[in-house]
Amino acid sequence: EIQEEIDDIHPADLLELLEETEDEDQRRELLNDIPDDIVADIVEEMDDEDDQYEFLHMFPKNRRKEILDEMSDDELTDLVGELDEEEGREVLSELEPDDQQQVKQLLSYDPETAGGIMTTEYVYIFAKNTVADTLKYLQSVEDEEEIKSYLYVVDALDHLKGVVALRDIVRSSFDTKMMDIINDNVIAINYKEDQEEVANTFKKYGYSLMPVVDDDNKMLGIIEIDDILDVMEEETTEDMNLMAGMDSEEDVDSTLSESFKSRIPWLVVNLATAVLAAAVVNNFSGTIEKVVSLSAVMSIVTGMGGNAGTQSLTILVRGLSLNEVTKDNALRIFLKELGVGVLTGIVIGIIVGIGSTIFAHNPWFGVVAALAMLLNMIAANFAGYLVPVILKKMHIDPALASGVFVTTVTDCLGFFFFLGLATMFLPLLV
Amino acid sequence: EIQEEIDDIHPADLLELLEETEDEDQRRELLNDIPDDIVADIVEEMDDEDDQYEFLHMFPKNRRKEILDEMSDDELTDLVGELDEEEGREVLSELEPDDQQQVKQLLSYDPETAGGIMTTEYVYIFAKNTVADTLKYLQSVEDEEEIKSYLYVVDALDHLKGVVALRDIVRSSFDTKMMDIINDNVIAINYKEDQEEVANTFKKYGYSLMPVVDDDNKMLGIIEIDDILDVMEEETTEDMNLMAGMDSEEDVDSTLSESFKSRIPWLVVNLATAVLAAAVVNNFSGTIEKVVSLSAVMSIVTGMGGNAGTQSLTILVRGLSLNEVTKDNALRIFLKELGVGVLTGIVIGIIVGIGSTIFAHNPWFGVVAALAMLLNMIAANFAGYLVPVILKKMHIDPALASGVFVTTVTDCLGFFFFLGLATMFLPLLV
Ligand SMILES: [Mg+2]
Ligand SMILES: [Mg+2]
Ligand SMILES: [Mg+2]
Ligand SMILES: [Mg+2]
Ligand SMILES: [Mg+2]
Ligand SMILES: [Mg+2]
Ligand SMILES: [Mg+2]
Ligand SMILES: [Mg+2]
Ligand SMILES: [Mg+2]
Ligand SMILES: [Mg+2]
Ligand SMILES: [Mg+2]
Ligand SMILES: [Mg+2]
Ligand SMILES: [Mg+2]
Repeated sequence: EIQEEIDDIHPADLLELLEETEDEDQRRELLNDIPDDIVADIVEEMDDEDDQYEFLHMFPKNRRKEILDEMSDDELTDLVGELDEEEGREVLSELEPDDQQQVKQLLSYDPETAGGIMTTEYVYIFAKNTVADTLKYLQSVEDEEEIKSYLYVVDALDHLKGVVALRDIVRSSFDTKMMDIINDNVIAINYKEDQEEVANTFKKYGYSLMPVVDDDNKMLGIIEIDDILDVMEEETTEDMNLMAGMDSEEDVDSTLSESFKSRIPWLVVNLATAVLAAAVVNNFSGTIEKVVSLSAVMSIVTGMGGNAGTQSLTILVRGLSLNEVTKDNALRIFLKELGVGVLTGIVIGIIVGIGSTIFAHNPWFGVVAALAMLLNMIAANFAGYLVPVILKKMHIDPALASGVFVTTVTDCLGFFFFLGLATMFLPLLV
Repeated sequence: EIQEEIDDIHPADLLELLEETEDEDQRRELLNDIPDDIVADIVEEMDDEDDQYEFLHMFPKNRRKEILDEMSDDELTDLVGELDEEEGREVLSELEPDDQQQVKQLLSYDPETAGGIMTTEYVYIFAKNTVADTLKYLQSVEDEEEIKSYLYVVDALDHLKGVVALRDIVRSSFDTKMMDIINDNVIAINYKEDQEEVANTFKKYGYSLMPVVDDDNKMLGIIEIDDILDVMEEETTEDMNLMAGMDSEEDVDSTLSESFKSRIPWLVVNLATAVLAAAVVNNFSGTIEKVVSLSAVMSIVTGMGGNAGTQSLTILVRGLSLNEVTKDNALRIFLKELGVGVLTGIVIGIIVGIGSTIFAHNPWFGVVAALAMLLNMIAANFAGYLVPVILKKMHIDPALASGVFVTTVTDCLGFFFFLGLATMFLPLLV
C-alpha cells in the first residue's frame, strides 16, 4: 500500500520529501520502498547534473543500472553531456546497449538546438488501422509514458506523414478509420533550429508537443512542452545576463569562483570604455578648471543618458528575442525611439536647465545643461536601438554586453556634449 | 474540399495567410469559406484585443455572434476585460446568456491570478464507470476541445477528487474500473495565486494542464500550458521593463505616446537621484578645483560601480522571480556577492590604481583611485543584493526600478569614496 501511495505522489514532491528527510537511514529506507522507475523520475527532477550523478552513486551499481535504464533518453543525454568527461563516460558505460546508442546519437546534436532537446521515446501509429485497432495497440504499449497527447504517423522510411490527437482517437467511434481523423498537414521543427526559435514556434502554435525532422522530413524525435518551459527560462536568464555583461548561465546558485569568472571579463571591457569617457573629460580639463561647478552637473547628463539608453535597449533586446522586430516595423520602431529621445530630452532638458540656472545663478549654464541633456537623450535612444540591432546583423546575440556598449555611448557623448558646449559658451559661464 | 484543407491548417497560419492577403475581396471570400469555429480560433490567435475587436467587426452582427459563441471563455474574458469599457460592454451584450454569465464570473478574478487565466470549459468524468463507459461518454462530448489530456473527477458538490490521464484511459482494457486508474492525490492551484507563481508550479510539475480550486477545494476551472507560455513571456517582459524603470507592458509595438508615458516617470525619479550624486560632487568642489584631473577619473569609479551593481542586481532579480532565493541560501548568496565585490574590486582597483598613477604621475593619486574603486565595487554588490531583497520584503516587485536605485547608490558612494579620500590625501595630490 505504501507503494501505491508513492505511485500517486509527483516525483518533484518526492524529491522535496527526500531533501527534507535529514536522517540518513530514514532516507535509505524510503528509497528502498520506491520502485526504480520512480527513482528515475526523481533523478530527472534534479536541475543540476552533478547532483544527479551524486544521487545515482548512493545506489549499488546493479540498482543504479536499473534506474538509468528507466530514465528518458533526453535526460540521459543532458546528464552525460553536462558531467565531466570521465564521469560522463562512466554513466554512458552503465547504460543498456540500446540506450547507449540512442544517447550517443542525441549527443551529436548541438545541445541548444531542437536536436539537443528532443527525445526519441514515443509510439508511432499506423494510418491503415481503425480506432479500435489503435486503442488495442496502445493498450499493448509497455511504457505508458511513450503515449503522448499527439501521436505521429510515419511511412516505412520514417518520413513524417501525419498527426492525430489522442482525444480525437478517444472521441471517435471504434470503427472509425484512422485515415479519417489524421491531419496530414503536420507542423514540424527542423533538428538544427535554435532552441529559442523552437520556443517561439511552440508559443505560436500552442501545442504541447511537436515533432522534429531532418532536412528530408524524416522524423527524428519529439519535443515536449515541459522542456520548452526550461528553454524559455534559460533563454530569459541568458538575455538578462548578457545584457548586464555576464556569463549566460550564472545564477544565484553559482559559486564565488564561477561568479567571479562570469563577471570580470566584461568589467575589464567596461573599464576600457570608462577610460574612454574619462579621456573625454580630461580633454576639457581646462574648461572644468575655470568653471568647477560643471563637474557636478556633468554626471547628471551622463547618468540620465545611461538610464534612457537602458530603457530603449531593454525594449529592443526583448523585441528581438521574441521576433517582434521585423523588416516591416523596424523603421517605425527606430523613429519612435528617436521620438522618445526628443520628447524625454525636452522634458528632462527643461528641468535640468532650470535647476542648473538656479544652481549656478547663470541662465547660460542652464542653456548648456539643457542642450547637452537633450542631445544626450536622443543619442541614448539612438544607441539603445542601434547596438542590439547591429549585433544581431553581425550574427552576435543582440543582448551581448549591450548594456556596456550603450552606457559607453551615453557617457562619452554626454561628457562631450556638455563640456563641449560649455567650452563654446565659456565666456558666458565664468 | 477547401473546407477540409482549411480544417488541417493551424489557425495561427490561417491568420498569417489572412494578413498576407492584401486584396480586400479575396480576404472576404476566404473568410466566407472558413467555418465559424475556425474563425473563432483565428481571433484567439491575435495578441491584441483591439485587433480582435476590429476583426470581429468586419462581420455582420449575426455571424459575429456565431463566432463569439465559438470562442473560449478565457479568451472572451481577456477580450471584454482589455477593451475600452464601452466596447467591452458591447461584446458582452452579444454573447449567449451562458457565455455571458461565465465571462462575468471570470471577470471577477484579478487578471494576473490563477482565476484570471483559467478557463471553465472542460469535461469531468465519473469515478464509478468503466473505461468503456468513459470512452463512450467522451465520444458523445460535443466540443472535442473540451477533452483535455488530463480529466478531472469531482463529487456532487464540485469538490476536486481525482485526476486521470487520457493516455491511462486509452491504454487500459475496456472493462477496467475508472476507480483503479484515478489518482486521488491531485495537485491543484488556488484561484488567488499570482500568475508568476502559477508558472513556477507548472515548471515544477511539468504538467500540460492543472486544475484551479477555491479555498474549499471546489473546482473552478483549469489552466492550460499554452497560456502559461504567455504568462512566462509577460512576466519576463515585466521584470526586464521594471528593472530598467519602465511600464511593465511596454514593448516594440507601443506607440510613441505610450512609450513616453512609460518611461518619463522613472526618468524624473532618476533625475532626482542624479541630483543627489551631483550634490556629492559639488560638496567636494574645493578639492576638484585644486586637482582638476580628479574630475576625469571619478567617472570611472562610478561607472564601474554601476556596471558591477547591475550584474549583481540582475542575478538577484532573476533568482527571486524563479523562487531560487530561500531562507536557507540567502546568507550564502549575500556573502558570495560581497566576495565577488571584494575580488573584482581588488582586480579592477589595481588596474585603475596603476593607470591613475601613470596618468597623474603620482602614486598617491593611484592609491586614492584604487581604494575608492575597491570600496565602490563592494558597495555595488552590496546594493545589488539588498535593493531587490528589501523591495521583496516590502511586498514590492523586486525588479521595480531597482536599476535606478542601485546606480544611485554606486554614483553617490562612488563620488563620495573617491572625492572623500582625495580630500583626505589632498596635500599628497597637489
Ligand atoms: Mg528537466
Ligand atoms: Mg527543471
Ligand atoms: Mg532504457
Ligand atoms: Mg538535451
Ligand atoms: Mg523531457
Ligand atoms: Mg540562446
Ligand atoms: Mg537569446
Ligand atoms: Mg493568446
Ligand atoms: Mg459558447
Ligand atoms: Mg484572462
Ligand atoms: Mg487558452
Ligand atoms: Mg507579475
Ligand atoms: Mg515578477
